[in-house]
Amino acid sequence: MINSKDQLLRERAASVIPGGMWGHMSTRYLGSAYPQFFERADGCRVWDVDGREYIDLMCSWGPNILGHHHRVVEEAAARQRSLGDAMNGPGEVLVELAELLVKTVAHADWAMLQKNGTDATTACVTIARAGTGRRKVLVARGSYHGAVPWCTPSLAGVTAEDRAHLIHFDYNDVASLEAAVEQAGNDLAAVVVTAFRHDIARDQELPTAAFAKRARELTTAADAALIVDDVRAGFRIDLAGSWEPLGVRPDLSAFSKAIANGYPLAAITGTDRFREAATKVYVTGSFWYGAVAMAAAIATIKTLRDTNAIASMNAAGERLRSGLDAAARKHGLLLRQTGPVSMPMVLFDGDAEFSKADAFCSAALREGAYFHPRHNMFLSAAHTAGDVDLALHAADAGMAAAAQVA
Amino acid sequence: MINSKDQLLRERAASVIPGGMWGHMSTRYLGSAYPQFFERADGCRVWDVDGREYIDLMCSWGPNILGHHHRVVEEAAARQRSLGDAMNGPGEVLVELAELLVKTVAHADWAMLQKNGTDATTACVTIARAGTGRRKVLVARGSYHGAVPWCTPSLAGVTAEDRAHLIHFDYNDVASLEAAVEQAGNDLAAVVVTAFRHDIARDQELPTAAFAKRARELTTAADAALIVDDVRAGFRIDLAGSWEPLGVRPDLSAFSKAIANGYPLAAITGTDRFREAATKVYVTGSFWYGAVAMAAAIATIKTLRDTNAIASMNAAGERLRSGLDAAARKHGLLLRQTGPVSMPMVLFDGDAEFSKADAFCSAALREGAYFHPRHNMFLSAAHTAGDVDLALHAADAGMAAAAQVA
Repeated sequence: MINSKDQLLRERAASVIPGGMWGHMSTRYLGSAYPQFFERADGCRVWDVDGREYIDLMCSWGPNILGHHHRVVEEAAARQRSLGDAMNGPGEVLVELAELLVKTVAHADWAMLQKNGTDATTACVTIARAGTGRRKVLVARGSYHGAVPWCTPSLAGVTAEDRAHLIHFDYNDVASLEAAVEQAGNDLAAVVVTAFRHDIARDQELPTAAFAKRARELTTAADAALIVDDVRAGFRIDLAGSWEPLGVRPDLSAFSKAIANGYPLAAITGTDRFREAATKVYVTGSFWYGAVAMAAAIATIKTLRDTNAIASMNAAGERLRSGLDAAARKHGLLLRQTGPVSMPMVLFDGDAEFSKADAFCSAALREGAYFHPRHNMFLSAAHTAGDVDLALHAADAGMAAAAQVA
Repeated sequence: MINSKDQLLRERAASVIPGGMWGHMSTRYLGSAYPQFFERADGCRVWDVDGREYIDLMCSWGPNILGHHHRVVEEAAARQRSLGDAMNGPGEVLVELAELLVKTVAHADWAMLQKNGTDATTACVTIARAGTGRRKVLVARGSYHGAVPWCTPSLAGVTAEDRAHLIHFDYNDVASLEAAVEQAGNDLAAVVVTAFRHDIARDQELPTAAFAKRARELTTAADAALIVDDVRAGFRIDLAGSWEPLGVRPDLSAFSKAIANGYPLAAITGTDRFREAATKVYVTGSFWYGAVAMAAAIATIKTLRDTNAIASMNAAGERLRSGLDAAARKHGLLLRQTGPVSMPMVLFDGDAEFSKADAFCSAALREGAYFHPRHNMFLSAAHTAGDVDLALHAADAGMAAAAQVA
């Protein structure tokens, strides 16, 4: 569609933005059917700049958890905006939100706020080092914890020293975790784990109880920090923290994405063990006191709690998963659907090059459903059964296209 | 004021936030007269949670450049918000803003957007390393470039490796810069300089032409990046970039604070020399595509341009500076007022312990003007002559109090 508005914007972008777009929302690795630019969004729907409407299975890559333009959130944000946003200090909403996080997140004795998920994971690591006086940080191979030199997946511009104190283990592999702890010796500051394994382009894995418990035992024994990176999963699995159903409580957690239904905010929660360390680490940003995003977060978390939104997302996720399985069977395809149903990862058997996934997604997109071929997706509480059925209708065309791929 | 709302909020905050508050907006180093929490803001005025009104000389530590609730900015933001904010990809406003930055900032061939000033400075450094294949980054002693391990002023939680490739020089000291370049040898990636010297608790210094030109010559000769950290000063000195009046153009610039009149946004601009490197560095965040802050930035930059806002800020700054000088003379005090008039640093002679400054600020605060004793301040285009005169009236009480300090 050479004369499409999206194409014209891409051409303009190519001249003023390196590569035409940066980061995770660049469509350069997606099929040509994917729009780069969006006109508007409402509930669980998005419209691209050429006016095409989609049932959205990405939810802005996580932030949209209650639906775009959610009335309660927007009213709370508007009320705070009419008072003030970025002021010379925080508003009362900072205290209210910190109290709400402490009340909601099981391990939390305190909270601090930031803007990016990367801010939160980086602050957790820094606080863990400050609180232990040690340096080694254990991270799982392939886990994504942000986009700055210590953790970014691309090594361009990264020096060896940026990662000098990282030690890797394999997610859910107790022996590899024990070996990494052994290697850290008496310099172990923290073990950092994502809430579940949600690496790009591979099956998701829920943490095993054995792995989670051992991570807690090892860090407790070493008086090091167990950090759960709940940036992606936070508020979608358990409002008390994604490891709460496992009975394992971290020392520090990082949240962002869904915390304020799309308003830019991140948070860390911590235990009293790391309270003093948190006072010593200097972390801040020009907009970290913006009151509007905090008001939105309070409304978001209370709405999630009061409307049983996680159950709604799970119901939509179950319906999507069983519908996709049925559509795959109909077209003679084998799917692997992994991870929490509300955060679907859909991969095709025998599809090492992702050509079936690409064909599926492109065809489904043309029929009005926005899936992703290699990244986990997200459902929101705004996805009704009817919305899921519309997505499944589009998915049927997607499966037919995937079935044509050798 | 033990029963004040501010005090009650501080007590609640102390239990759920480490130290009661983190970062640059914590009042723990300020006099007890300073409120920690704010109720609302409008134009160049702020109200604390106990209802006290202040003429604001801090402008939210920079972001507020046109005045709170600026009609044009708010309307642009509201229009975009009614469409969508955080979507599956950017809106058309991303392209418009990148084009506007390229058109406005003299050295810019391209732009990228982030959320924090620290995001922007860190991305500049990473892009410089990627583009040169080298590691050493030269920074001025005492300059503030953000609050992550490579640059944060506190060393708690920071490892030696986080700063392994930093080499220090003294701002405005050509010989020290040359020595640092010499030390970097063939591993020089970048020289990073703030737009002017605005270190905390000391006189500000504008860059000398000799220093700026030599920084450009040395980086050009080494094919390294000259990075101007314009996070704090950007859009207050020259819309084309703060070093444009010096005739010196950087390769990369970092902007944030005032770029969207308080909406959370940061930007880097760069030359074609670093365009390809910028495509290789993976930088992103969940909210970096939020369209509302971009719409606000477009409106802010156009309004700054079309209303000659910098001249307004300079006029207010001149009036404040001469008024403060007169008030100091009246009370037998000697002031040092340094840096751009629109970003005042006011220090008292013979005040090594800042006790005069603290007395001045506390008394002025009680009279309705919010000054800062040790950090540079900010004027906005919303500060009229009448507002400055109100601040000067309060400053007179402040000078009387400062004159009482031995």
